Amino acid sequence: MARHQLNPKQFHNTIGAHAPALTIESGDTVIAQTLDAHGFDGEGKQRGHDPNPMTGPIAVSGAEPGDVLAVAIKRISPMCSTGWTRSGLAWNVVDPALVREMPARDKIIWSVDRNKGEASLAEPTTALKNWSMPLDPMIGCFGVAPADGETISTATCGPYGGNMDYRLFRAGTTAYFPVSVAGALFFLGDAHALQGDGEIAGTGIEMPAEIEVELRLIKGQPISWPRGETDEFIFTVGNARPLEQALQHATSEMLRWLESDFRLDRVSAAHVLGMAVRYDIGNVFNPAFTVACRLEKSVVAPFARRA
Amino acid sequence: MARHQLNPKQFHNTIGAHAPALTIESGDTVIAQTLDAHGFDGEGKQRGHDPNPMTGPIAVSGAEPGDVLAVAIKRISPMCSTGWTRSGLAWNVVDPALVREMPARDKIIWSVDRNKGEASLAEPTTALKNWSMPLDPMIGCFGVAPADGETISTATCGPYGGNMDYRLFRAGTTAYFPVSVAGALFFLGDAHALQGDGEIAGTGIEMPAEIEVELRLIKGQPISWPRGETDEFIFTVGNARPLEQALQHATSEMLRWLESDFRLDRVSAAHVLGMAVRYDIGNVFNPAFTVACRLEKSVVAPFARRA
Amino acid sequence: MARHQLNPKQFHNTIGAHAPALTIESGDTVIAQTLDAHGFDGEGKQRGHDPNPMTGPIAVSGAEPGDVLAVAIKRISPMCSTGWTRSGLAWNVVDPALVREMPARDKIIWSVDRNKGEASLAEPTTALKNWSMPLDPMIGCFGVAPADGETISTATCGPYGGNMDYRLFRAGTTAYFPVSVAGALFFLGDAHALQGDGEIAGTGIEMPAEIEVELRLIKGQPISWPRGETDEFIFTVGNARPLEQALQHATSEMLRWLESDFRLDRVSAAHVLGMAVRYDIGNVFNPAFTVACRLEKSVVAPFARRA
Amino acid sequence: MARHQLNPKQFHNTIGAHAPALTIESGDTVIAQTLDAHGFDGEGKQRGHDPNPMTGPIAVSGAEPGDVLAVAIKRISPMCSTGWTRSGLAWNVVDPALVREMPARDKIIWSVDRNKGEASLAEPTTALKNWSMPLDPMIGCFGVAPADGETISTATCGPYGGNMDYRLFRAGTTAYFPVSVAGALFFLGDAHALQGDGEIAGTGIEMPAEIEVELRLIKGQPISWPRGETDEFIFTVGNARPLEQALQHATSEMLRWLESDFRLDRVSAAHVLGMAVRYDIGNVFNPAFTVACRLEKSVVAPFARRA
Repeated sequence: MARHQLNPKQFHNTIGAHAPALTIESGDTVIAQTLDAHGFDGEGKQRGHDPNPMTGPIAVSGAEPGDVLAVAIKRISPMCSTGWTRSGLAWNVVDPALVREMPARDKIIWSVDRNKGEASLAEPTTALKNWSMPLDPMIGCFGVAPADGETISTATCGPYGGNMDYRLFRAGTTAYFPVSVAGALFFLGDAHALQGDGEIAGTGIEMPAEIEVELRLIKGQPISWPRGETDEFIFTVGNARPLEQALQHATSEMLRWLESDFRLDRVSAAHVLGMAVRYDIGNVFNPAFTVACRLEKSVVAPFARRA
Repeated sequence: MARHQLNPKQFHNTIGAHAPALTIESGDTVIAQTLDAHGFDGEGKQRGHDPNPMTGPIAVSGAEPGDVLAVAIKRISPMCSTGWTRSGLAWNVVDPALVREMPARDKIIWSVDRNKGEASLAEPTTALKNWSMPLDPMIGCFGVAPADGETISTATCGPYGGNMDYRLFRAGTTAYFPVSVAGALFFLGDAHALQGDGEIAGTGIEMPAEIEVELRLIKGQPISWPRGETDEFIFTVGNARPLEQALQHATSEMLRWLESDFRLDRVSAAHVLGMAVRYDIGNVFNPAFTVACRLEKSVVAPFARRA
Repeated sequence: MARHQLNPKQFHNTIGAHAPALTIESGDTVIAQTLDAHGFDGEGKQRGHDPNPMTGPIAVSGAEPGDVLAVAIKRISPMCSTGWTRSGLAWNVVDPALVREMPARDKIIWSVDRNKGEASLAEPTTALKNWSMPLDPMIGCFGVAPADGETISTATCGPYGGNMDYRLFRAGTTAYFPVSVAGALFFLGDAHALQGDGEIAGTGIEMPAEIEVELRLIKGQPISWPRGETDEFIFTVGNARPLEQALQHATSEMLRWLESDFRLDRVSAAHVLGMAVRYDIGNVFNPAFTVACRLEKSVVAPFARRA
Repeated sequence: MARHQLNPKQFHNTIGAHAPALTIESGDTVIAQTLDAHGFDGEGKQRGHDPNPMTGPIAVSGAEPGDVLAVAIKRISPMCSTGWTRSGLAWNVVDPALVREMPARDKIIWSVDRNKGEASLAEPTTALKNWSMPLDPMIGCFGVAPADGETISTATCGPYGGNMDYRLFRAGTTAYFPVSVAGALFFLGDAHALQGDGEIAGTGIEMPAEIEVELRLIKGQPISWPRGETDEFIFTVGNARPLEQALQHATSEMLRWLESDFRLDRVSAAHVLGMAVRYDIGNVFNPAFTVACRLEKSVVAPFARRA
């Protein structure tokens, strides 16, 4: 189980079958340097450009279409004492009649205090002078090369992952992606120090990061959409517009998960979901929106789970 | 502060300016008997019919358009040892290609064990033989007479409340509704013993209930959409199709709340929401969907709140 | 077949089971005076208020739930030499990023030249100095009392009709509405001298009008959504948000029409629709959007039609 | 102005920066053989596979990002006396409750009678025994390499064109595409002998075709979305989900067109659209839906048009 450092010279603004920056074995760990969404590194040097320059791809030996790539997120370390957001909110998350009264979308700097574990405005408004929030680092954009020969902008997301901007992709979570090309070709970047649901500011607190992930292949258990698991939850992710379609994808994928791994017939799976499901809105800003379908592990604990 | 019992003979399938079943003073408490969504009471006697027969309306003396009706939910007691759901899931929450493979929408009986505080299938599938969930009683449909002279079916919801089917309308929550007619005219019913997000089974565990609410008028602080408050959270509720529009209503209402009651300018309010907002999908089944925009009170604790 | 004049003193801003302003026999003709969307009559006197004050209701003797009310639109005559629109476009019909750059929504006066049959701006912009359009009068809002005891604002629309703002509801068209209450209770108003698809200005050229309609009951052939017929076309109308749901309602209703009246099995009906259907966007502005599913009569001419 | 024949050996299921199959000069004409959506040619030989194998790309010398590629469609000739559709309708175009009652989606053969100019079922249902429709050949999928290094499946569409399935892309129409890469890289295929609005069967009558197009570069007049022009109409095309977003893109692009080429200020442009716009639903089936915003040329004839 080797450990690799990845600090590439070249970054990608699309996710597709690009030449691997690194090739590893299943079970290996990678410590990757990622740029912020505009391409800046921890020293404030611009080494890539928007949208969301990706570190990678990382090829995993032996990965084939139909496999699953499990990505255990071990650590997401801010590489900088500042980050940035936009002021105001995305136009589409407020009533259309309010759009003309919203603040301009200026770039705003935040302090990212790694000692205190807090984020606060670098030049706070009067009202927010004493206001801070705990850091909660997450990966905004990651995933594997898409199916069907597609090469997709890192502005958006799909069955392969991509720019999902979902809070639960944080340290301690294992994400699962459906492999569509030989080697899987895993990309990551666009870390956020903190972000609310929906990425409704159009950004989280954007930052360069050092991200440690352990990559592992799972054979013979194909999936259709990204999935995830924490100590407390299992979840599935749908990426599409409108929100209703993203929700349909996520719910359908959870039905399949309950059937295949927890041995529930569809009637039983529907009963469990109907009474216990939680939905999270990952992003309601990108070209494709993200909805997660989430269950507490305690809910499915009574069922024998496939190893 | 009087306490009233309300166990009416007549129930309403619309929310509108119907003749009051009871008139009370602001600050009074009402203990109301409600039927299940199909009109059955705690003795299994059908006294109303679907959809969602309402107990009420309760007039509050002195209520005028522009006021707010605060409804503190004190208690929601199941009146029966069973409840019901539908098998399968609503057609619109799974991928269209899956709809033809979903279970039929049969009526299913659940045991509602008030001693253990648990719900389980009365005739469990093999897989769910030992599966139960904690009860979490909530009000599916409640609200006040709508504006503009409308009388609206209890199947749907709007700015006045109605069939929102949102989990957080449980005991311990105070709901706020915008008053649009003299007396406010408050209705309630459609209690659920338990329900997941989105009401994706098309029902919660439907049950007759005894519900204790304290009703209080707030003058001079008009609101546009339902709001709510628990020990831990404040939230606003948007009711519309599609989900994006419900989310826009809820977010816009939260912006207004932060501005009026927490003295935040709009730039500051947007920063707070962008980093801290949580969205819940109340229902994604009824003619109008419900999205809640929720904040932890700890997030807004630093700000001086209007009394 | 009597002819009635209806020029009421009282107007309604909701469609519901209000007391009839006039009761007629099936087959009778009514010549009704309607106010403009803001309540002004042909003399410029304000006699009602927005939204869309309705003339009516007109009760038809013997009408029962399950019947259909056929409304043959004989004539729509402007009662005034001016009308009005809003400048700019509705916020939701342009890209969200463009909303802040759109013109303010001022009230704009148009000349309605009944001799020339043309509309032009009363105070034209430089660019539109010599620009006019042929008048094409239509009824913006009409329909019958809704089902389920509802009383609905004339701002919106539903299975009962209402504020559909669809161009093809013009003279020469027969509209069909599903009767839900005894007497049917027909309302009409909100005439437009001209309007493009989608009512994207948020208005047509709003005007008071004299409208001549012949009302006829059809027994034993229930429908679910409004339908219409011209010399050239048959069409069905779905009213809902989002557009996709309105389209689903309209398409489903057309399937039913092809099956019941043109004796097509569902496979055949689907083939016909797949190759020949036309969709019109009636309005994409009101709380519920309107989509029409339209077929040329020549397409269905080979099929034996139910009398 | 050379004429080129293009009958390639290799076909593409993505639109992107693939190696040119042919390089031409601006003003040249290409007569291209295209396969049907499943990859069959006019002899019934399968030479490509689904979805929508493309002929091309055709590079145009001197084309640069920011240019426009004008594609004058001269002729679309069916290469086969049959074509195919699916029975039933796409699941998402009928009410969800109807999906389970719809016909299975079998492949159905149609006769394409090039002499009579008619399409009819090869094995008609009883009801459709004497039913035929006039042929109206169109291009289902065409466009240029996308921006931002993307390579996109021919199942979907975007600002670069793609699988729009819009009826008005027929002989006599000139389509305009925004060039994003050197050489423009034009692709075409997926011809339909006939198709209704929305491609609601999920297909038109799919056929191999010989398509004659004249390609011409326009410098210095950048566009954002596909546009088109016939003798009678100008139109703009938005491709997105949901329909409302596709409509927003198309309307915004038409505003820009009226401003840049017809010298209308935005207020005037909005007046013209509000009164005269027509919307067509190109497809409501593909991953991205297509809405066209269309104006009669007579409406804009009074305005001086940029050469």
